[in-house]
Amino acid sequence: MGNVAVVGVGQSHFGIRSDASLRELAFEAVKACLEDAHVPLADVQSMVVSVASDELSCALQPSAQVVDYIGFHPRPSFRVEGACASGSMAVRTGWMNIASGLADLVLVVGAEKMTEAPTARATEVLGRAGDFLWEYPFGMTFPGYYALIAQAHMAKYGTTEAQLAAVAVKNHHYGALNPYAHMRKEITLEKAMNSFVVAAPLKLYDCCLISDGAAAILLASEKLAKRISKKPIWIRGLGLGTGSLSLAHREDLTTLGATVEAARQAYEMAGVGPKDIDVAVVHDCFTIAEIVAYEDLGFCPKGEGGRLVEDRETYIGGTIPVNVDGGLKSKGHPIGTTGVSMAVEITKQLRGEADEGRQVPKAEVGLSHNVGGNGQHAVVHVFSQDKE
Amino acid sequence: MGNVAVVGVGQSHFGIRSDASLRELAFEAVKACLEDAHVPLADVQSMVVSVASDELSCALQPSAQVVDYIGFHPRPSFRVEGACASGSMAVRTGWMNIASGLADLVLVVGAEKMTEAPTARATEVLGRAGDFLWEYPFGMTFPGYYALIAQAHMAKYGTTEAQLAAVAVKNHHYGALNPYAHMRKEITLEKAMNSFVVAAPLKLYDCCLISDGAAAILLASEKLAKRISKKPIWIRGLGLGTGSLSLAHREDLTTLGATVEAARQAYEMAGVGPKDIDVAVVHDCFTIAEIVAYEDLGFCPKGEGGRLVEDRETYIGGTIPVNVDGGLKSKGHPIGTTGVSMAVEITKQLRGEADEGRQVPKAEVGLSHNVGGNGQHAVVHVFSQDKE
Repeated sequence: MGNVAVVGVGQSHFGIRSDASLRELAFEAVKACLEDAHVPLADVQSMVVSVASDELSCALQPSAQVVDYIGFHPRPSFRVEGACASGSMAVRTGWMNIASGLADLVLVVGAEKMTEAPTARATEVLGRAGDFLWEYPFGMTFPGYYALIAQAHMAKYGTTEAQLAAVAVKNHHYGALNPYAHMRKEITLEKAMNSFVVAAPLKLYDCCLISDGAAAILLASEKLAKRISKKPIWIRGLGLGTGSLSLAHREDLTTLGATVEAARQAYEMAGVGPKDIDVAVVHDCFTIAEIVAYEDLGFCPKGEGGRLVEDRETYIGGTIPVNVDGGLKSKGHPIGTTGVSMAVEITKQLRGEADEGRQVPKAEVGLSHNVGGNGQHAVVHVFSQDKE
Repeated sequence: MGNVAVVGVGQSHFGIRSDASLRELAFEAVKACLEDAHVPLADVQSMVVSVASDELSCALQPSAQVVDYIGFHPRPSFRVEGACASGSMAVRTGWMNIASGLADLVLVVGAEKMTEAPTARATEVLGRAGDFLWEYPFGMTFPGYYALIAQAHMAKYGTTEAQLAAVAVKNHHYGALNPYAHMRKEITLEKAMNSFVVAAPLKLYDCCLISDGAAAILLASEKLAKRISKKPIWIRGLGLGTGSLSLAHREDLTTLGATVEAARQAYEMAGVGPKDIDVAVVHDCFTIAEIVAYEDLGFCPKGEGGRLVEDRETYIGGTIPVNVDGGLKSKGHPIGTTGVSMAVEITKQLRGEADEGRQVPKAEVGLSHNVGGNGQHAVVHVFSQDKE
């Protein structure tokens, strides 16, 4: 299999970006990415675009807006989608594009504009990433889905509301240090614990943000990677798993089968295990999701995720620093963008270029974990400073 | 680059399928495909799903419905999208999946359910595949876009309304012979010419159908292809081009730059030219689109597309038989399905298994051409009986 490296990264500021349209957000990220790589747009051979929702972007084929606005035609481009995991699927597709020999230099762009719609409308659109036939019509939206997961985890393993809140405190701590984050403010455990209930036991600070934003990475074949970048970051392992559409069909709500499968594939391909990961970004759409991810990715034994964050083991200095960019929780979660932004963060960490206070020392191997829906899809990628 | 072959094909009946949901349509196609290949679902390693519209399917990540209903999890699957060219993009992605070494056996599924929405609603959703910011809000929908293209072609090259109608007559002739077609009836030139005007000069019979339907193909690496199939059909050339979002930004409305670019790439990769093509399926969303495609694909000189069909050169027995499955015009156009269904048709033609009266004799090399929007994307694939 061909070796493929990240040779450029860029992203827009996340937030309520009423100053920019979908296409303008994408342009912001692409410009930053190409400047980072010192590569002109003319040299890029192909593009993969991730926009998760037609409805929020008011468009069929939203990728055409991005192609047009950055002036990419007549070159190849298309969109990939898997709800909130769309961005990582685009990274995977960009990898395939190069490893298949079809191109040597591929731009992967994620963009989403979510805040133009009222929050209730966005929540409704997102809700249909679950089973729109048998669960959604009965009133289920994402806080509800993850509340059920949290309740099951608390019942089975004794996970506490304070442990959930500890995830939020950690991610806001690091998000405050990330200039691209949507919500740059520290919060206390008390503030999180006393915030209003959205879907019990999940409270306001257990829920990620609804954000606008874009991110881009430039992928290169081995032939070009070393010529373009002094510090190419190699994609060493790729994993993609799927799970049942309905929560009701899962034997155990405390784990996402899609994550377990994706992790298995990615670790096997990379020839590494959870203990080899120096830094990780995981899908914390809700605080419980980060705790479940710790366990499903093998960062701790099953049921001990709550304790892991309570013991500060997922802070820098702990056994496995997680979401030191602020995560979906504080950096924000423009859904089609998130997976690409995860690749941006891991690349910066492995290059040693993360912001002060949130650079993991001597990070050589990184992992990204991105979930679509409530576990219908999950994508895990392993990145490394070294090719093999 | 790895060689990739089609080793199984299947599709549902197209039409107003009020008897089946999106997931059920997909199941119908997948079942037929795996039975054709004599491969159990358990052997398939990965899946690529094409559903073009979130809105018409009432879902975010509609691919999850397909994965779930056919029982594919926890294996990898995701969706690709480029409006009406989504299906061909899924074929391309399936090819990359195998050529990259990530899998040896990949299922490509296209499905769309369009007739549950009122026709006006479907037309409105489709209209937003054009420039939703600068053209669509002023009342442009697809008949309008293609009417402008037809007017430009008539003004520049003297193409006539009777030549447009001749495309419809041909495609209905062959569609009547296709048991999977939505509208299995012959029409006369008079009937087409006298049908009501939708957007001048396009009349009712110049417009393709709004249909439900699904299609599936099974792709295999060279290693597996010969073991599975006695007649593997090889994907020899892949092309994907893009064009401006707005029609207003095009220098010439009588050509689609995206098609010209996609054809260039596909011919070059396959090492063939238009004269080597024995049978083609092209994107006849409107009759004018087929005429423009003849020219952009090099089947005739620019401006002579109208004459080509009038002289019956695109019938079986002519220089280049086109859309002998009925095309989008008579077979139907479930938008995410069309590109996959095109691959089904070309495979059957090259295997010599098309229905009586519409099998092209001694067809060895075939071509598919699929357009997204009004030329924002175009995909061209070259298929062949022989590997090289």
